[in-house]
Amino acid sequence: MIKISIIGATGYTGQELVRMLSRHSQVQIVGLGSQSYVGQPYDQVYPNLRGFSKACLSTEDPALIDEADVVFLALPHGLSLTPVSRALEKGKKVIDLGADFRLKDPAVYEKWYKHPAPEQSLLQKAVYGLPEIRKEEIARASILANPGCYPTTVLLGLAPLLKNNLIEHGSIIADSKSGVSGAGRGLSLTTHFCETNEDFKAYGLPHHRHLPEMEQELSQLAGAAITITFTPHLLPLTRGMLSTIYCQPKSPLTEEEIRRLYRDFYQGRPFVRVMSKGEIPHTKWVLGTNCCDIGLYLDDRTGKLTIISVIDNLVKGASGQAIQNMNIMMGLEETEGLALWGLYP
Amino acid sequence: MIKISIIGATGYTGQELVRMLSRHSQVQIVGLGSQSYVGQPYDQVYPNLRGFSKACLSTEDPALIDEADVVFLALPHGLSLTPVSRALEKGKKVIDLGADFRLKDPAVYEKWYKHPAPEQSLLQKAVYGLPEIRKEEIARASILANPGCYPTTVLLGLAPLLKNNLIEHGSIIADSKSGVSGAGRGLSLTTHFCETNEDFKAYGLPHHRHLPEMEQELSQLAGAAITITFTPHLLPLTRGMLSTIYCQPKSPLTEEEIRRLYRDFYQGRPFVRVMSKGEIPHTKWVLGTNCCDIGLYLDDRTGKLTIISVIDNLVKGASGQAIQNMNIMMGLEETEGLALWGLYP
Amino acid sequence: MIKISIIGATGYTGQELVRMLSRHSQVQIVGLGSQSYVGQPYDQVYPNLRGFSKACLSTEDPALIDEADVVFLALPHGLSLTPVSRALEKGKKVIDLGADFRLKDPAVYEKWYKHPAPEQSLLQKAVYGLPEIRKEEIARASILANPGCYPTTVLLGLAPLLKNNLIEHGSIIADSKSGVSGAGRGLSLTTHFCETNEDFKAYGLPHHRHLPEMEQELSQLAGAAITITFTPHLLPLTRGMLSTIYCQPKSPLTEEEIRRLYRDFYQGRPFVRVMSKGEIPHTKWVLGTNCCDIGLYLDDRTGKLTIISVIDNLVKGASGQAIQNMNIMMGLEETEGLALWGLYP
Amino acid sequence: MIKISIIGATGYTGQELVRMLSRHSQVQIVGLGSQSYVGQPYDQVYPNLRGFSKACLSTEDPALIDEADVVFLALPHGLSLTPVSRALEKGKKVIDLGADFRLKDPAVYEKWYKHPAPEQSLLQKAVYGLPEIRKEEIARASILANPGCYPTTVLLGLAPLLKNNLIEHGSIIADSKSGVSGAGRGLSLTTHFCETNEDFKAYGLPHHRHLPEMEQELSQLAGAAITITFTPHLLPLTRGMLSTIYCQPKSPLTEEEIRRLYRDFYQGRPFVRVMSKGEIPHTKWVLGTNCCDIGLYLDDRTGKLTIISVIDNLVKGASGQAIQNMNIMMGLEETEGLALWGLYP
Repeated sequence: MIKISIIGATGYTGQELVRMLSRHSQVQIVGLGSQSYVGQPYDQVYPNLRGFSKACLSTEDPALIDEADVVFLALPHGLSLTPVSRALEKGKKVIDLGADFRLKDPAVYEKWYKHPAPEQSLLQKAVYGLPEIRKEEIARASILANPGCYPTTVLLGLAPLLKNNLIEHGSIIADSKSGVSGAGRGLSLTTHFCETNEDFKAYGLPHHRHLPEMEQELSQLAGAAITITFTPHLLPLTRGMLSTIYCQPKSPLTEEEIRRLYRDFYQGRPFVRVMSKGEIPHTKWVLGTNCCDIGLYLDDRTGKLTIISVIDNLVKGASGQAIQNMNIMMGLEETEGLALWGLYP
Repeated sequence: MIKISIIGATGYTGQELVRMLSRHSQVQIVGLGSQSYVGQPYDQVYPNLRGFSKACLSTEDPALIDEADVVFLALPHGLSLTPVSRALEKGKKVIDLGADFRLKDPAVYEKWYKHPAPEQSLLQKAVYGLPEIRKEEIARASILANPGCYPTTVLLGLAPLLKNNLIEHGSIIADSKSGVSGAGRGLSLTTHFCETNEDFKAYGLPHHRHLPEMEQELSQLAGAAITITFTPHLLPLTRGMLSTIYCQPKSPLTEEEIRRLYRDFYQGRPFVRVMSKGEIPHTKWVLGTNCCDIGLYLDDRTGKLTIISVIDNLVKGASGQAIQNMNIMMGLEETEGLALWGLYP
Repeated sequence: MIKISIIGATGYTGQELVRMLSRHSQVQIVGLGSQSYVGQPYDQVYPNLRGFSKACLSTEDPALIDEADVVFLALPHGLSLTPVSRALEKGKKVIDLGADFRLKDPAVYEKWYKHPAPEQSLLQKAVYGLPEIRKEEIARASILANPGCYPTTVLLGLAPLLKNNLIEHGSIIADSKSGVSGAGRGLSLTTHFCETNEDFKAYGLPHHRHLPEMEQELSQLAGAAITITFTPHLLPLTRGMLSTIYCQPKSPLTEEEIRRLYRDFYQGRPFVRVMSKGEIPHTKWVLGTNCCDIGLYLDDRTGKLTIISVIDNLVKGASGQAIQNMNIMMGLEETEGLALWGLYP
Repeated sequence: MIKISIIGATGYTGQELVRMLSRHSQVQIVGLGSQSYVGQPYDQVYPNLRGFSKACLSTEDPALIDEADVVFLALPHGLSLTPVSRALEKGKKVIDLGADFRLKDPAVYEKWYKHPAPEQSLLQKAVYGLPEIRKEEIARASILANPGCYPTTVLLGLAPLLKNNLIEHGSIIADSKSGVSGAGRGLSLTTHFCETNEDFKAYGLPHHRHLPEMEQELSQLAGAAITITFTPHLLPLTRGMLSTIYCQPKSPLTEEEIRRLYRDFYQGRPFVRVMSKGEIPHTKWVLGTNCCDIGLYLDDRTGKLTIISVIDNLVKGASGQAIQNMNIMMGLEETEGLALWGLYP
């Protein structure tokens, strides 16, 4: 059994890790770190997991790192450096669900996050863990930067086109919509039930923090600097994320050619499902699963391509993807613990 | 592997059976019967089960019974007699999620359902399948009448008290609230999003069809005829059921004594969880699980006892309980395929 | 024009007062007091009122009292004494939407609210403002204690029976359900969208703070001490409150007799609407209105009576009722500014 | 008093007309036509309007036209021709909330709606009633084609730019999101609570029926043929519509210059509100109102402009706009009966 601990276990992504890893056949949870619930049995914090009564330790407790083979970090940004350093020293693997190790350029990180980036050598060591694109690197990683939820939808939605240099780089627009759980369990007026229920709005305009992460990875895929237009919106539902992506193909392609390209690209990637002609993905079809459903629609009137990419923001957009990465890093079956049906209706 | 088929597979309880049984380690789904989707691959009807592409047969197709060891019926009331008869003839076991075999007295059935009851001999054969109360009978049953969702919450909420003759029979009031999925996938103004969203209402007053089923089983538990007051309400959420049950203890008991009684009664019943002092169950804690959470609150001012009983109406209130019954009938572990965590948040 | 000010103007009941009073033909809003938004234009706090840009004053600013004819207080409990005293000194009328002046017995107040009650003389001066029951007293009041939302539904639901001594006092059970806006705009895990959305639960068991207020007024109506059983629940919707009330008639009455009694009792009370036989009220029918819809259902099997009473918790349960009281206190038409249709769907 | 009748009064837009017009100071409702509820008092169909008990007539009843000065049609497409012809013959004014008279080119209508267009002479007579753009024509109209909800958001969002020839015509993308009430009161799986609640999806891809209407009017504004990319999505809420519109300015403009342009353009248009710098509109801010809130965000990195345009789909997107048009056609104050605050929270 692989011993794992979770630092930041009582936020929503932490809970999702606990929920899924406690049923994972190859894993044993040895430590749970929390800031607000030190000493409390975990199932008092999350009674949906009644019976899983392991007590929370302080996030600073060294046992969280020392007794684990793999350490998951689900912390607010700016807090990952210390545990990552200690984990590496002790020869442990780390999977960071936060933003601290995603950006390769410290200057870019500091501009967007307003505090110092981790040191360059650590940043260089970290692998950006989108398994459909970097499986081999992930297999060798000791620091894994788990992608953000918005970037996951946009990168999976565009990767086949960019890798094959088929679209105008300046034409990309991502109009994204997220469920409220993406904002975490912290209290704020935005997550107050009465403010968000029966409401819909954009936010973070014109520049959202996930932008540099998306552009870094899109540029990497394209082999050229890419700048995109991105608008996040808040949906009045708990889980689910959908990005509607617009772009201009360079040369005339049929929708069928594009669909074939996507199916070839994602061949052998168990969690990406390319919709058939005319099929339009719903967030509810992937609820509670690690899947990303992608639909493709070419408008013969304008020549523009619309791509719709759908995930559960807490699973493929966070904790499920982190487990998928762990499976790859530890030489397990990629789908272990993740072969789930969507809960419906 | 036990071969099972589901007749009425494309309603919500049918889907829930497919979703859970397709992951059950001892079971193979050999037939799916539907009225509206004959010939269609199942995952076109429910794309959350993408990859489970078995085609639907007509509900009348004899193969549904002939090729199965256990037949699940998830049909509107009045339609179970024919398949049940055929199944028995062929020596198959049947689990009926509908109402046709729940009431022992044909006259009562006909009064409430306005069409003829199944013949007496079949009715007598049928076992009312609440496993926490009748496990031994269920193990020997060939026709299993799976309880309704409202009765499940009310019976589990009251059984320890009635079995021990501790409450005034005339004092029972059940104020129940159900999620919309309990009304099924059929179209009606009541299930129209805009009518039910942001609304709350009672319905079926003063006499709801689940009343005779509850009273029959409560009377059985008490060994005396019991009549109750029952009000169902419709919650603006998809899954979840909560019954608030009021009653008058016969003699003064402390809340702790009552709690101990419940814990003893449900000892070894893996799906009933009695809350600790002061703990109040939420429907969301059991979302997607087969659990029934029960809270107990004695009002020292009035001497009345309030019991809160919570389930997922599609799982413990329907398909999960049906699978629990199948496990018992087929000699499997009771929890097989049902050891699920609630999806949260 | 009557000059009014609102102290505690930026909570939900405060906003509802502003929204309704700014359209009231006989009223001019001269002051808005807030703790968190001092100096900010009101429509920056609530952009649904764009154009109403009056700046907020500190809640302590004496102008709020000195320049007004009527002062509305929408403050957390324990904070009303100071402004009430000053208002009385200056000869102003006060309408307190909080709990501080509702309980006549200081000992009861202190037991439930855990801090000192206002002095006896002020408590005695205060009129409990349920206009359907105390219109004459309200017309002469200088301190008006506006009822809580739960008590409004329960009192209106039971008044005709208690006044006529028709039910067993010990038999009353009120099972109440409230929308989330009843918990106010303050941040808490309970009002966090992801925790409450798609969830349903009871809370405050076994003793909720609205209990003594209900019992005081029910006893007053009955002319005898009454103790009831009360369970509040939280609905996953923003606005709406429904109480299902159970009681035992003393002597056999028909449902029609009871209905006639209610219609007579509420004759000339424009905001109480007694449903016809078989009609079941919905919270959505009263959304945004000052109405209380009451349905009556006699169970001929048990002899028990079920009463369903429905309001918009922010209107008839708070701000609308406060305006109704102001209309009466100031000699205006009772319905002025309150003749609203429910927003549907 | 102006006498009005509503044909198609029992759908959601019909109800919204009744709700608002029954409070309109210059109007008397003389007829209500319905297909499903002939003979029923209106407040039995919509109990939120309790007390408005006028009985419904058949939609074919000639009195609906003969006794009215203005006839509102809220019918499914294809059914407006007969009542429009009769109304014109009788010298009445007609406001059609459906699609039949919006498209000027019969061939375009027939291609998208698959049945014959009204005759050319009637089509030419009809005025496309977006009051912020065509107030003078509307004042003289006898047939008024009331705009669709999607086109309202997109046209108001782009009009100032197109009128001034400031953007690349080929660059326009409208990503729109609608509440479920836009789909009407008819029953369908899409409007089933359990299918839509907690779900989000696009639909109608790649070509939605509102496209030709938008393109006709955008082209008119620009004085050149315009083709756009448009994706409608379904939000899990009842009322509200938001369009996120992307376009490429022709020459470098600052965000402030653009904002000033919009404010000038909508000067004296009481229902369009241009947000200040950094302000982002919410659908909930306009709930129940006739307002359209517009936000402007220039991305200095890409040079692209993002416009967010928000309405209540049943008010400014349908019935409120129809009343605004009636006010203009009948020489009343444009805001009569429409000076409403948004219901919040």
